[in-house]
This record gives sequence, structure tokens and C-alpha cells, in this order.
Amino acid sequence: MIISMKKAATPEQIDHVKQLIEEFGYRVHESRGSERVVFGAIGDERGKERLTCLEAQPGVEKVIRILAPYKLACRETKPEPTLIDLGLGVRVGNGKLLVIAGPCAVESQEQIMTVAESIKHSGAHMLRGGAFKPRTSPYAFQGLRNDGLVLLAEAREKYGLPVITEVMDIAGIEVISEYADCLQVGARNIQNFQLLKEVGKTNKPVLLKRGLSTTIEEFLMSAEYVLSGGNSNVILCERGIRTFETATRNTLDISAVPVLKEKTHLPVIVDPSHGTGHARYVEPMAFAAIAAGADGLMIEVHPRPEEALSDGPQSLRPNEFEKLMEGIRRIAAAVGREV
Amino acid sequence: MIISMKKAATPEQIDHVKQLIEEFGYRVHESRGSERVVFGAIGDERGKERLTCLEAQPGVEKVIRILAPYKLACRETKPEPTLIDLGLGVRVGNGKLLVIAGPCAVESQEQIMTVAESIKHSGAHMLRGGAFKPRTSPYAFQGLRNDGLVLLAEAREKYGLPVITEVMDIAGIEVISEYADCLQVGARNIQNFQLLKEVGKTNKPVLLKRGLSTTIEEFLMSAEYVLSGGNSNVILCERGIRTFETATRNTLDISAVPVLKEKTHLPVIVDPSHGTGHARYVEPMAFAAIAAGADGLMIEVHPRPEEALSDGPQSLRPNEFEKLMEGIRRIAAAVGREV
Amino acid sequence: MIISMKKAATPEQIDHVKQLIEEFGYRVHESRGSERVVFGAIGDERGKERLTCLEAQPGVEKVIRILAPYKLACRETKPEPTLIDLGLGVRVGNGKLLVIAGPCAVESQEQIMTVAESIKHSGAHMLRGGAFKPRTSPYAFQGLRNDGLVLLAEAREKYGLPVITEVMDIAGIEVISEYADCLQVGARNIQNFQLLKEVGKTNKPVLLKRGLSTTIEEFLMSAEYVLSGGNSNVILCERGIRTFETATRNTLDISAVPVLKEKTHLPVIVDPSHGTGHARYVEPMAFAAIAAGADGLMIEVHPRPEEALSDGPQSLRPNEFEKLMEGIRRIAAAVGREV
Amino acid sequence: MIISMKKAATPEQIDHVKQLIEEFGYRVHESRGSERVVFGAIGDERGKERLTCLEAQPGVEKVIRILAPYKLACRETKPEPTLIDLGLGVRVGNGKLLVIAGPCAVESQEQIMTVAESIKHSGAHMLRGGAFKPRTSPYAFQGLRNDGLVLLAEAREKYGLPVITEVMDIAGIEVISEYADCLQVGARNIQNFQLLKEVGKTNKPVLLKRGLSTTIEEFLMSAEYVLSGGNSNVILCERGIRTFETATRNTLDISAVPVLKEKTHLPVIVDPSHGTGHARYVEPMAFAAIAAGADGLMIEVHPRPEEALSDGPQSLRPNEFEKLMEGIRRIAAAVGREV
Repeated sequence: MIISMKKAATPEQIDHVKQLIEEFGYRVHESRGSERVVFGAIGDERGKERLTCLEAQPGVEKVIRILAPYKLACRETKPEPTLIDLGLGVRVGNGKLLVIAGPCAVESQEQIMTVAESIKHSGAHMLRGGAFKPRTSPYAFQGLRNDGLVLLAEAREKYGLPVITEVMDIAGIEVISEYADCLQVGARNIQNFQLLKEVGKTNKPVLLKRGLSTTIEEFLMSAEYVLSGGNSNVILCERGIRTFETATRNTLDISAVPVLKEKTHLPVIVDPSHGTGHARYVEPMAFAAIAAGADGLMIEVHPRPEEALSDGPQSLRPNEFEKLMEGIRRIAAAVGREV
Repeated sequence: MIISMKKAATPEQIDHVKQLIEEFGYRVHESRGSERVVFGAIGDERGKERLTCLEAQPGVEKVIRILAPYKLACRETKPEPTLIDLGLGVRVGNGKLLVIAGPCAVESQEQIMTVAESIKHSGAHMLRGGAFKPRTSPYAFQGLRNDGLVLLAEAREKYGLPVITEVMDIAGIEVISEYADCLQVGARNIQNFQLLKEVGKTNKPVLLKRGLSTTIEEFLMSAEYVLSGGNSNVILCERGIRTFETATRNTLDISAVPVLKEKTHLPVIVDPSHGTGHARYVEPMAFAAIAAGADGLMIEVHPRPEEALSDGPQSLRPNEFEKLMEGIRRIAAAVGREV
Repeated sequence: MIISMKKAATPEQIDHVKQLIEEFGYRVHESRGSERVVFGAIGDERGKERLTCLEAQPGVEKVIRILAPYKLACRETKPEPTLIDLGLGVRVGNGKLLVIAGPCAVESQEQIMTVAESIKHSGAHMLRGGAFKPRTSPYAFQGLRNDGLVLLAEAREKYGLPVITEVMDIAGIEVISEYADCLQVGARNIQNFQLLKEVGKTNKPVLLKRGLSTTIEEFLMSAEYVLSGGNSNVILCERGIRTFETATRNTLDISAVPVLKEKTHLPVIVDPSHGTGHARYVEPMAFAAIAAGADGLMIEVHPRPEEALSDGPQSLRPNEFEKLMEGIRRIAAAVGREV
Repeated sequence: MIISMKKAATPEQIDHVKQLIEEFGYRVHESRGSERVVFGAIGDERGKERLTCLEAQPGVEKVIRILAPYKLACRETKPEPTLIDLGLGVRVGNGKLLVIAGPCAVESQEQIMTVAESIKHSGAHMLRGGAFKPRTSPYAFQGLRNDGLVLLAEAREKYGLPVITEVMDIAGIEVISEYADCLQVGARNIQNFQLLKEVGKTNKPVLLKRGLSTTIEEFLMSAEYVLSGGNSNVILCERGIRTFETATRNTLDISAVPVLKEKTHLPVIVDPSHGTGHARYVEPMAFAAIAAGADGLMIEVHPRPEEALSDGPQSLRPNEFEKLMEGIRRIAAAVGREV
């Protein structure tokens, strides 16, 4: 941490701040510039958040953090990539791309079976489908709940695809863990720290979706919650951030891929369906994600998007997904990756 | 909903979309412009979210919502302002301003008692203090938890101030309801719909804090979750949104006050402490909020901000709060309000 | 500037960076933490932008600026507020509030005269009106141009109101300076540095409108362009920034007022008309601006907003402006200001 | 345009609005829903901006535009892609990728010649280099100005590379047109409409860089300014937008590529150097841009980035650019494009 004093700070104020930094348990490094005094606080970065309260001290101009506040998620701490086993022989983090596909929500047996069969045939590795759905409106379809889980397990059994579904609250962790191979924490819950702590106590792989206004640093701090609970199987998923642009549902931050790959050892995948909100932009953005170095993709597929109970406009039809997979193989090869 | 067809849509596509709108249960209104056909879907607005899936239909250009998707929160439905009883004679929504003050987190008996005494003396109506704290870092202070609740209750008893504290998960609702007069749902949980549903089943007043990237419409949809659960005692709190500007911690959206007051009958208060992140900007922004028509304020006060375990830089000292209250009374009088 | 080295930086890289900082003409202050080396570069802040290129140097993690890059606009350099004479006895920066009002665009003699008469009567100090209009669409009304200037001058003469109008390019400075008392640089030109340099060479007061995505620091750097040209008569105008929220045309950043007042000695006014985009939000946001400490307001007034050639939805009618002025006087009194 | 009336609008208000729409020259289409009346205004979209002033009319709730406000830039108007001749046999819009490379600013003869030789050797098609530089700080390097143009022309001559450089004001158009093959309008001038009108009168190709907070629709309206002036040779360049994320200099909106390619016939290129601000993210984002369907790239290359007078941290060294070109060829092949 850097603590920059005001130009007009008195010698007493300067001394007092120095003393406070030491009382907080840090070694002080002092730099006297032409205009002002700047302190460095040296010691364990994890507790330094505490030092920000020095901004309330007379004479202090600002407190600036220099180092990353996460440790377990940090690539400096663990340079080699984390490999995660998702069940039924599917893994992510080993260089091969992971493709997760399926409907936004499980709607019926016929729907989920049709999708599972077609995506399996097209080469997807994992099935997605929401059983419990977070919806902006209380009047919108909220998911088949437990019945949805049963249907996912049935599709898993029949097509040999591991399954991922969203866990919306602590109460749901146990039952969802029985049926699913990977727990998804949705964008709206990315700073639901109680939920993060609890999934951190399980041994299930966890996929974290970046929130609409989560910075990359905050995203990694949310991963740190899960990791510090003892669960090291965390997958990060970029799915679009909220900006002023309205031509797309969100702005898919493809640059988050190289930034995250640099800062962390955790696998990073991209969801171009939520990221763009329109089926016609899914293919170019899926290609972009792979070209930028993503470890995988999460794609929404529905047999009849025009009748979907949620997110129809962004869902591919099975034949469009088939075509997408062909393109993905070509892009993957161009960047030296296998699908 | 307006469904706008593409210029190049075929007559078959146009007819099919018309038929689908009717199958969804809406009456169709057709308008043939010089360049394209535009449909209006007429019927209950609450289920219309469903119509957005028509964007997946060939020939459709876009689907635009015209009316608000909330009903219970809507001022058109209920023009008179909602009056909420917060206990110990304190109310909001009756024209008088509500001032809530207290530390970010309850840290010790001495701290919370000192603050409670001083804010009571300065004229605040309600005491705030976090017992369970949502923190970006798993290594930061997470609150005194149940001990914090006990301390809040003690301060409530001694100084006659009703108490508000944050509920972070469903499991916490019961115990917090025993101690607190009002449940706060934090900015990070504003779209934790499971939590919203559960607080909607209680009869406690609920204060909802707008999320960092929550639109006003989404904010009202979150209120709708609580209202549709049967709890009509919802207070809305603007506390800053996330923008590109970094001079302030968040950008306090003061214009949300008149916009919300126009669209809903629920009381609207403002938190300039989180909204700006710096104690020195709290006074001008508190004044601005009152001038813009807010029904109240939530202000962080700490006896020694430079030692606070969280949010020190944005906390006022008791004497600063005393001075703030004097200013608030003057502004309130200028806009015809009492404190 | 702080130059933070990577944890893995080699001693050679560390030495080389130190040497480069010195070659750029700065004194180096070195701090060796538990994990990495951090350098401070000490010397004149104005040229330090140059040091950012060190990020391209192997071993460097990041370069962080600590001090403000502006000098002339800085309150540390000049603590007393700048007083600006706008002509015909009108001044800003002396504690009294400045109210500028008028139509978005000058449309006709009848229109501008009607408005001038009514705002004068209501107590406004200065007349605004666009003669050259920046419009998003090339097909929209572009202003009466020179004829508009003549009409403004006529209104100035008749009602004794100094006049402000927008200068859109360098070619327009001369003629507009003949007719207007203050040159407005619009939000879209706030980083049109050539234009800023040229208005900096005149002796006319200049009103700078913050751009839609201009940070407060960049805004002050744009002021610095005008000041460093020799023109010290700069007024800053907050008029809304672009965020994700669409309920208002822009998000009026009221907190920019106290932030700017702290960082600079230049007068700061607010334009709630552009800031909100809707006439019904102008009054509460005008009140908020005054309560937050603004030195003045810029308000759009049109005799018949529903027929305005631009920005009708955000224009007040003369009688609404009259009522607004009454409220402004009350708020001003509450914060110890005169109108 | 859709004009939606309030639920509480009176029959007189409804009739009056209908009449006003007709007076503005549009045919009215009326739809009476269960809750309110909605009008459609039918006629030429280009003048419809005017209708927004109806929001000032009593009884009107809001005015919503349905169709795009641009005509000449619109793919519906001209489905085939626009092919632009950049001189010396270089073209864009014909399916082959265009790679523009060079330093942020021309700094010396040695610098520009070194870069030109190396990028030519690596396979770039066009040389970039700023002679007139828009800089946030008036104290930063402002470019070699006319001397820079002469150096660019020398490099053009020697290496057979057409040249692009930025035009910052109307006064510079003539001289820059003498030396350069393509005029660049920078991000900060994207709504400098006077400049757009003037470059629209030339016959030089114009590259428009999207502004930091320019929506895609506004970006196309700025193109419309140039096109409506008679110059049909417009290239669009995505270069990052401003969001809350600070890990990258800007957020490169890769999804703007497929959105723009859908909406317009103009060629679309991407600048990952400005878009990310860090050399190490340029390669993955260049790959992403090509994978998403961009028609080309603009890349900053400098022989010694750590000494660059501007934008060093985002500049590639010649050998890094060489390696980038190899990767680009592989990605291009994977999406069926040639470089």
C-alpha cells in the first residue's frame, strides 16, 4: 500500500500516520518528494484492506493499493494451470477446449433429451440447463426446480454428458450436488459471499460467472472465497458486462480472457450467448473467445428458440450449434488447441 | 410489446409471427408502415417477457417493451405514497424525513453505544450497524455476527432508536428479525431473488439497496419480488452506481430520486456515505439528496474513522454528524419538509 | 509516479529501470518490500506522463501516478476561487449564484425575444441559445448560424443580459466572439484540443461542458489547455455522464460538484436540462446542484417545448422557469448563498 | 416512431397529439390497448428526430424510435460491401484483411524508417503514424506536425506503403491530404461534426475511430455525416470503449464487429493497441478481432517502446509484430480470409 500525504500536511500529521501504519503491523518505507511525503506499507498484502481507513486521518491525501489482494487465485503463487475433473472423463485446464451446451432452462423431458442428444452428436462435452432460474421478474418462469434436476440426471445417464446447473442459494447446494457434476454460481450471485463460502466447503467443481459490474479484481476475490474454503476446483466464466451500449444485451469483455489467464491459474471460459443476447452474434463471439485463448465455451441451445420459456433470442438451434462446432474446431486448430 | 418485422420479411413470416402472438394469448394490433410491418401485442403486461423469444423467429427485427413490467410497485396502480412504521414511533413515507445513522459495522459495545448516544442527541431517528458484513475479500473483517445483533439490541433499548441491519442470506432472516426493526438487503444481493422472496414472506420492513449496476427498472422489479410475497413495507435506497469515474467510490445517482418518486409509491432514501466513499463529500451529497426530494438519508458515523474495521474513509465523526443534521434541517425547510 | 517491479524481476531489470528513470530527469526513490521493489520518481509532475512508457520495460509491473497532472487548474497552486466577469455586471465565482437560461437553439426572433424577456423577468442573469448546433444526425436542424448570433445580440441589447453560445470549430471563434460574452465548448468537443488551444488565446470567458465519458481529471486537463494558453476565465459545467441507466438521458453526476470544488479554484455550474433530458426532473436536480455547492445553473427554457427544433422534452416553459427560480432562491438561502 | 400516451391521458390530449404528428408531416397509425393509446408515425425516418419533442406534450409518456436513423450507412439500403481503394494497390472491403501498423507518433526519421521497413517485411499493408497528436495533457508531446508528414511521405515512397495519419482540425485537412492516403478522425473527434462535414467534402478515404462512449448507432450517424457530404470511402474502427473496468485501458468491444457488419456495408477494422493499452494483450485481441469477422487491424509498432514519446506500453516491437502476423495468417485461414 502507498499512503500519499497532502502537500499541506503538518510534520505532526506525517509522524502520526507513520506511527499508525506501524501500529497496524506494517513496516514503513518513507519517501520525501519535492512536494509531499509518500509512505509505503510493507507486509502481508491480505490484511492491507484495513489500511484504507487511514484516508480518514488528517493530512492523508489517498491510499493506493499496489499488489493484488488475492493469494490463492494468483498465478504468481501457483504458476501452473489448474486442471479440473468434471466427471465422466471430461476435464478442463489441460489445454483441450471444453464446450458446455444446453438450454437456458430445462423445460420438459422432450426438450432436454432432444438437446442432449444433438449436442452430444455435435461434440459438446457437458450439458447445461437451469432447474432453478434467477429471473428479473417475479412473474416470469422460475424453473422446474427439483423436477428439472431429475431430468438433467436422466439426460446425463442416457448421453454420458456431465451436467452443470445453477445453485441459487445455500439451501439448494445439497440436492443440486446429488444430481450435478458442477455447481454454477450465477452473475447476480457473484458477490453473494455466504453462498461462495458454502460452495467452498463442497468438493464439487464450481463455475463462477462474472457479474454485470464486477471488476476482474473483484471476480478473482470471489474465486478466492471459494478457494479459501478449501475447494480448489474453480472455473471462471466471462459472460458480458454492463456498459452504455444497448446494441448487445451485455458487452462481452473478450479482453478479460488474456487478463485473467495472466493473473490466475484457474481455467477461463466464455459465454457468448448471455454476452451478446442474440443468436446471430454467438458464432463470431465464440470464435473470438477461442482465438483470445479461452479454455472453453458455454453455449445456449434450444430445439425451438421461438418458444423458449427464457432467453430464446440468444439460443442456437441444434443445426446451428452443429455448424458452430465445426468452426470452433478450425479456430482451435489455428491457435494450437484441440476441442 | 411492439414487435417490429424486418423490411425483407416475407408475407409468410409476417403471418406466422402474428399467429404466434395470438397463441401466446395476446390480441394483435397491426401497423403497416412505408417500410415494414409493426405489431402491437395487447394484454396483461406481466407475462409479456415471454414475447421476447419472438426475436428468434425469422423475419423479426426486434421486440420492444413499452409498459413497465412491475405492477405492485407502480404509482399508476397505487398513487398515494406508502407509509411504513419502523417501530418506536418512527415512520417513513409521511413527508417527514427519516435519518438513519451509525457505523458501517458494529465493532464493540463501546463503539456502538458511543455512536448511538451521539446520533440520538443530534436528532437521528434510527440506528444502523452491520453485524454480518459482505466483504469483497475473504480476509477482511466479516462482522461480529450474533454478538453484533445483541449489541444493537442493547443500543436500541438504551437510546430508544429502532435498528436496521443487513440480512445476507435466508438462514439469517429469523434471528435478525428477532433483534432488528428493519431488514436491509445489500447492494450485492439486490438480485438474490431467493432472499427477496423470503423477506417478502416476513412482516418486517425491508430496505433494498440499489445494486452497482441495477437499472431503475430492475430495482423496481426487485421491490416487486418482496411486494408480491405479501410484504408491502419496502424502502428503496439509492447508494451509488458503478461508472467509469474513479474520483468517487461510486457515482451517486441523485436523479434516481425524482425518477423513483415518479414511478413508485414506495419511500426513497439516499446513502451518500457509500455513494461517494469519502467523508468530505457526504455533506454536500446529503444536502443534494434532500433537495432532490428524498424521503430520508442513511449516514455512516464512527467515533474514530481512522481505526474503523471497514469503510473508515467514508464515515463521519459524531461532531461532523451533528453539524450535518443542522444543515439538513435548513435544506429540509427550504423544500417544505420536516426532519 | 510509482513504478512497481514484478516479483520475478531480475536485478539487472531493476537496475535498468532505475537508470531509465534517472535518464528521464527524475530523482529515484527506491523501496524494497517483502515481495518486490517499488520506485518513486521525484520531480516536476507535468512531464511525468512520459514515464508511463516504462511499462514496456521488462520486469516492470505497472506505473501509477500519484499527483494530479494539472497545475494551473489546481487549488493547491491557487487556493482562492477564480472570479470571472461575464459582462453587463454579471460575475461568477464571487459566491453569488449564476443562472443562465434560454433555448437549446435560437429558432426565430419571436422565440428568442420571448424567452429573453421572461427569463430576465424571472431573475436569470445570462441568456443561452445555440446558433451553431452539434447534432448527432446530419439530417437534424443545424442552427440558424450567423443569423442566430445576430438575434442573440439583439436580445442582449434589449434585455441587458450577457449572452453565451457554443463555438464548434476554430473558424467560428472570431465571429462568435464579436457577438457573445462567453464562449461555450460543448461536451462533444471537450477533448478537441485544437479548439481548446485557440479559445485559450482569446480573452473571452470560456464555459467547458464535461464530456459524456470525461473523467474529472481529464476535464481539469482540458481546462488546463485553456489556462495554459493564457486565458484564465474558465467555467466548468457538469451536464451528465453516460452510464448504463436509460431512465434519464444522462446520469447527472452531482458529486462532481464537491469533487471539482475541492480540486480546482474554477467556478462550477450544472446543467440539469441535458443532465436528465426530461423537463420534469429539472427542478429537483437544479435544487440538488445548488445544495451540493454549485456556483450556478444552466437551464433550457422554450416558449413551446412541444414544437422545439431540438431538445424539446427537456425544456421548461417560461412559467415553469419562474417557479424554479423561486425554489432556487429558497435552497440558495439554506446553504448561505445569494442568487 | 412510436408515441405512447399515458394511461391517464385525456381524449383531448390524445387527439391533440395525433394532430401534431400529422402536422409534422407523418401518417398516424393508432393502436388502442387495454391500458393506453399508442401511435405510430409513418414516413421518412430521417426527419423523425423532430418527433421527440412530443414528449413535452401533456399526456405523452414516451417517444420510441424503431428504425435506424441512418440511411446511407445502412446495409438495408446498400447490401453489398463497400470496397475502398487506399492507394498503391491496397484495398479494404474485398474480403482480404487489411493490416495497418506503425508508431503512435512519428518521432524521428530513424524511428519511422525502421518501423516502415520492418512492418513491410512482416507483411503489413499500410503505415500509420501521428504527426498531429491529440494529448490529454497540454504538457505532453504534441507531435512533429508538418515535419512528421514529410517523414511519413518519405517512408511511403521508400517502402511502397500507403500512409494514414490523424487530422485534428479543419485547417489540417488540406496539408494532410497532400501527404496521406487516408485521413484518420480520432476517437475524441468522432462527434466533431464540423470536421466530419469537411472530410466528407474531400475524396480521400476516411477512417473513423469510435469514441470512448459512442454507441454503435451514434458511430454510424457520424459515418452518415461523411457519407452525406459525398465521400463514400469510410472505414470504421473499433478501438475500445470506456467502462468501469480498469485492468485494460479501455474495453475493446469485439462484439461491435458482428453488429456493425450486420448493420452497415462499410469495412470494419479493430485497433487492439488502444483497445487494451498493454502490448501483452494485443496478440490475443488481434486474433479475436479477426475471428469475429473484422476486415482488418491497426497495430502500434515501435522500435523501442520503453522510450516512446506516447503510448509505449501498448506498442509491439518489430519482432513481436512479425510473430503476430504469422498468427494472424493462421486465424485468417481458419475463417476463410486472406491477409
